[in-house]
Amino acid sequence: MTDRSRRVRHPGAGRLRQLRASTAIVLAASVLAPIVLAPGFLATAARADEGMWTMDNLPVKQLQQRYGFTPSAEWITRVTQASARLTLGCSASFVSADGLVMTNHHCANECLAELSPKGQNWFQDGYKAGAQTTEPKCPAMELDRLDTISDVTATMAKALAGQQGAAYSSAQKAAEANIQKGCVAGDPTDWRCDVVTLYHGGRTALYRYKRYQDVRLVMAPDQNAAFFGGDPDNFNFPRYDLDMTFLRAYENGHPAKVTYFPFDPTGPKDGELVFTSGNPGSTSREEPVAQLQLTRDLELPIVYGYLSTLDGLLWEYGRQGAAQTQDAQDLLFGVENSLKVYTGWLQTLADPAMMAAKLKSEDDLKAWIDADPTRKAAYGDPWTTLEGSIVKERAQYVRYAMLEGSRQPFGFMGDLFGYAKTLVRAAAERAKPDAQRLSAYHDANLPALQASLQSTAPVHADLDETLMAFSLTRLRQALGADDATVRLALGKDSPDERAKALVSGTRLADPAARMALWNGGQAAIDASTDPMIVLARSIEPTARALRDEWDNNIESVQRQTSEAIAKARFARDGANTYPDATFTQRLSFGVVKGWDENGKQVPAFTTFAGLYDRATGSDPFKLAQAWIDAKPHLDLSTKFDFASTNDIIGGNSGSPVIDSRGHAVGLIFDGNIHSLGGDFVYDGRQNRAVAVDSAAILAALRVVYKDDALADELVRGHL
Amino acid sequence: MTDRSRRVRHPGAGRLRQLRASTAIVLAASVLAPIVLAPGFLATAARADEGMWTMDNLPVKQLQQRYGFTPSAEWITRVTQASARLTLGCSASFVSADGLVMTNHHCANECLAELSPKGQNWFQDGYKAGAQTTEPKCPAMELDRLDTISDVTATMAKALAGQQGAAYSSAQKAAEANIQKGCVAGDPTDWRCDVVTLYHGGRTALYRYKRYQDVRLVMAPDQNAAFFGGDPDNFNFPRYDLDMTFLRAYENGHPAKVTYFPFDPTGPKDGELVFTSGNPGSTSREEPVAQLQLTRDLELPIVYGYLSTLDGLLWEYGRQGAAQTQDAQDLLFGVENSLKVYTGWLQTLADPAMMAAKLKSEDDLKAWIDADPTRKAAYGDPWTTLEGSIVKERAQYVRYAMLEGSRQPFGFMGDLFGYAKTLVRAAAERAKPDAQRLSAYHDANLPALQASLQSTAPVHADLDETLMAFSLTRLRQALGADDATVRLALGKDSPDERAKALVSGTRLADPAARMALWNGGQAAIDASTDPMIVLARSIEPTARALRDEWDNNIESVQRQTSEAIAKARFARDGANTYPDATFTQRLSFGVVKGWDENGKQVPAFTTFAGLYDRATGSDPFKLAQAWIDAKPHLDLSTKFDFASTNDIIGGNSGSPVIDSRGHAVGLIFDGNIHSLGGDFVYDGRQNRAVAVDSAAILAALRVVYKDDALADELVRGHL
Repeated sequence: MTDRSRRVRHPGAGRLRQLRASTAIVLAASVLAPIVLAPGFLATAARADEGMWTMDNLPVKQLQQRYGFTPSAEWITRVTQASARLTLGCSASFVSADGLVMTNHHCANECLAELSPKGQNWFQDGYKAGAQTTEPKCPAMELDRLDTISDVTATMAKALAGQQGAAYSSAQKAAEANIQKGCVAGDPTDWRCDVVTLYHGGRTALYRYKRYQDVRLVMAPDQNAAFFGGDPDNFNFPRYDLDMTFLRAYENGHPAKVTYFPFDPTGPKDGELVFTSGNPGSTSREEPVAQLQLTRDLELPIVYGYLSTLDGLLWEYGRQGAAQTQDAQDLLFGVENSLKVYTGWLQTLADPAMMAAKLKSEDDLKAWIDADPTRKAAYGDPWTTLEGSIVKERAQYVRYAMLEGSRQPFGFMGDLFGYAKTLVRAAAERAKPDAQRLSAYHDANLPALQASLQSTAPVHADLDETLMAFSLTRLRQALGADDATVRLALGKDSPDERAKALVSGTRLADPAARMALWNGGQAAIDASTDPMIVLARSIEPTARALRDEWDNNIESVQRQTSEAIAKARFARDGANTYPDATFTQRLSFGVVKGWDENGKQVPAFTTFAGLYDRATGSDPFKLAQAWIDAKPHLDLSTKFDFASTNDIIGGNSGSPVIDSRGHAVGLIFDGNIHSLGGDFVYDGRQNRAVAVDSAAILAALRVVYKDDALADELVRGHL
Repeated sequence: MTDRSRRVRHPGAGRLRQLRASTAIVLAASVLAPIVLAPGFLATAARADEGMWTMDNLPVKQLQQRYGFTPSAEWITRVTQASARLTLGCSASFVSADGLVMTNHHCANECLAELSPKGQNWFQDGYKAGAQTTEPKCPAMELDRLDTISDVTATMAKALAGQQGAAYSSAQKAAEANIQKGCVAGDPTDWRCDVVTLYHGGRTALYRYKRYQDVRLVMAPDQNAAFFGGDPDNFNFPRYDLDMTFLRAYENGHPAKVTYFPFDPTGPKDGELVFTSGNPGSTSREEPVAQLQLTRDLELPIVYGYLSTLDGLLWEYGRQGAAQTQDAQDLLFGVENSLKVYTGWLQTLADPAMMAAKLKSEDDLKAWIDADPTRKAAYGDPWTTLEGSIVKERAQYVRYAMLEGSRQPFGFMGDLFGYAKTLVRAAAERAKPDAQRLSAYHDANLPALQASLQSTAPVHADLDETLMAFSLTRLRQALGADDATVRLALGKDSPDERAKALVSGTRLADPAARMALWNGGQAAIDASTDPMIVLARSIEPTARALRDEWDNNIESVQRQTSEAIAKARFARDGANTYPDATFTQRLSFGVVKGWDENGKQVPAFTTFAGLYDRATGSDPFKLAQAWIDAKPHLDLSTKFDFASTNDIIGGNSGSPVIDSRGHAVGLIFDGNIHSLGGDFVYDGRQNRAVAVDSAAILAALRVVYKDDALADELVRGHL
């Protein structure tokens, strides 16, 4: 329950786009189609270096024509099997035969915080195991390696044929659960299977993963180096971040034997062809224009305003002392990160030329459908159906966001209410057959849910009270003082009084109290007098009704119409292009390259010299002592971070940058500010991925962190 | 410098829309055309009860047709002369022959705060003089009564003929200054003259006002009653606010003898025809669509995000203690009020049907121009010219907002920097000939400027430091850590360190220190080592360059193209409609009426009974003891607040509601949430003005506040 994303993501279900992608829906099935190049499906439509390509449909012709490069079968297999993802929403790669994993520092925050012994702060100060035998296990960290992709389009289509509304939702849940059971073949510990909808339903694929649930911490730098420049520099470039962490996958208590990317000690050259292999979380490049407009005009202003207010609150909260700073920093980072992303969206969606181009493309598709009676009969007019769901969403969105939301309701914030809501809903859901439950409460997800309830992570009571007072204030503001749910939530109290009573009266900060309610089921929930449970219980009928309306009459309609549109597009264009991102493995290609910013050329590389020039001694431009001491011993011309034209998005955090030999030359950790529009459109003129150079990684390990053991393993390729 | 509006209004110069309108540009001239009905110009185009009509062009035919009402010449004269405006941005009316003035509580905040003796808080607890002889003078309060309107279209057109860019701006300033000098005829103490651009330049008028600079405080209720429901209820209805204050205009030390509205003791009936006579601040109903889109897509997201963050900051700041709550409350109110307004704008500007209708109207006008070669030659293609300025604004807006802004730059907040910037700029501007200065520094405005610098209002150092730290953080975020001005502003410090050094090091909290710099002119500014002056001085060249670019190449172009479009529209339609609001006297008509809210009928009236039902005992739903004590003695069925279809906007605060006899039946203090779109469009189905009923005013005065002297004067019509 300490995952920051639960508290800050915007509640437009089905539109969760975030730096760390949410874990895709957990599903399952059977057949294993080997990953092969299908030359007939190669892309010709995409321009420039655009595209997040599935491993079974790489843009070979484009690579040959633009860069004279043809990926061999061995290259493709290596890239597939040396890549991985962290289920918490990041990408990663293997960089030694002995299971050594490279990812971002910001992908290991929780592990570092949870493993820190009392009085130490590994997240802030860094960590090195020094030797393989002393590597500590990250709690609740899972790493998945893609094994196979297979096509289940026909199976799903059959299961969903003729279904509408609530029946559609439950048929879908049942079919996916069924496919999943077959795929893991009785071994859900070692295998994980996801049903993935590609091309908005043009294709449905089954992704089978090898699971690693024993992941240990090898080395992490200090946070000042990992996130140098902080929020001001986030999504900016030039950049000077060492945003890396090394982990190790274990199998049966021993380092896992894996396929890996050899680590290149010198990094890429300006203009060099490079690839990123990672798991972009979600994009909306194929979303109908009406939905993009809804995001721009309805969802974004509400979410942006809410998060901005929360940003100001947390900023001021953190100024009240060191403890407040520490308690708020994780949430503050999440909020500020989201706000930067949304800023990019607002800019992109407000671009009239971009929207006009999208509209033109949609009009062309409509014309293509209308030109043929058979097509007209097959696809109908999904845009008109979509319009109906949009009218409903306009009417419901504010209430849905305040009282339910896709993660936590904006009207009831804080960990404690989060626990209460989970407990109240779980009691009702667990009493139902698996296939009828909301996805978060499927049997497959209950262990993780239970683990989160058992978490011994401390609840920051004062921050929780502040967040509750704030969110109750917003609730009353959004729905009005006369709204029945507002009256139910507040009674005659002010938001401050109510928040104080709730937080001081609840026992849910205690994991034992939570587990008693979990184990007691519906009877325990019904009997509880805990004020937070009483609140969640009293809100639940309204929240649940909103959720059902959302799932059955808004989101499922939007999904079905999107699918109808995508099917028409797919029928016309085939797989000549790439599908929207789905937090599954994709390959992007590009070149190391700067860009033109208002007439000024931004170079592709930064160096250690630039880092020292930029350090002011004040946060967030402050260097740890180890870096100050290392300065005379570092080659200051060493390349530090670099920009490339690769097409990435949130979820790609931790992706390796690899060269045409298949060697690791860098580590993706961010995009520039122009990449934020990438949710909707790729613009190769300015959209850039941002990575740490492999040369900087090696130099920092040896000179700053004096971790020769790890550096040697990287160079050698094994322990 | 304590005017909250300086700190929170959005910096899109020329687009200042706010609840309290800014004072219009102070100008001048000569001829006095009597106000007469011009039947040839009566409106037929406007639908429903739409319109903010100038007193020399009332919609007589519409009133006759819809309501069978014909305003007599005596009626029009009384309405004109019994109406007034407060120069700080509100409307008002005379309600007794002895200069008694009725306006809103929220229009007298500053007066109440400034007059409160040590240890008392008249703003919070209310005030009554009890007798005319003891009424205290409000510092810096000015009330203006419209005397005459005359047409200066030809004079201004001649002065501006053939001018472009910077030359246009200075020719305009010179011509306006010249007209003003003639109009006040050597008596600027008693008369004030404003050149007002109507119909976006279709017409230019000279408004001559009788000035009252001796305005005294008669009675104000407590803030809990005046603003019952606080921010949650602001812009909402049903409503239960007694948002009134009574002042008195004096002339030569005696109560002014004036034309007045007889006060009706019973209030209006449901469905009754009522008028509001006030000074709506600004609307954008005739603004070109491209500019509306710019507001929606560029300006609003930036301003909304900034103010939302500030809202969260101030909310949390205020929770730290009673002193912090008090220091922050004025700014917090302004921010929350602006945010509600902007929320309404976002909703309205995101309405596809509304924008489509505007576009259609613009296309019709284009077609009308293109249909005739003479028109084409006369009006050309202003839309294309406008597009050029919009491209420039897109490139400049963020820098302009952060470093300059129309009031205070978003990058440098707080009273202390405000003083510093004023002093630095004033030194340079005062050295120039009057006509070449920025308008705020014209000779006519220097006394007010000097008075603000001499203000003994305390600077809240801790809040000022917080605001400075916050705004420097936003500055760095918006422009990037590498920006030259950001480096200049921060040096090697963090925003917190820098803010601390600036606020603890400056002497500008002391009025004497400010006046020494004011009196010392440029030499004193150049020699100053005060860190706030040093900062403002170092920023000034950049800020001034942005201002010049904005004034000369963005705003003046937008003004000229708007004028060209408006001239074409005016040539086609004449004065058959009303001009956009300009903080000058306008008459709106309508009926007392509720509305349909999602199928639920909202009644037109609330009662005292509703107030007591809604009181919870917790802020902002808490009643003062006087109200609790009065309950048994009040007739609880007394009508309290009411809604009507009158078309009003910010600046109308304090407008009287009058009946067809010309008697005061209410006091405007707000609009409902649907009225917020009124900046762009009037929708009579839901747009409602909200007023206090005259019956409630009398009952509260007699029973709650026991101010029979004032109640008697209202009923009698004189002292």
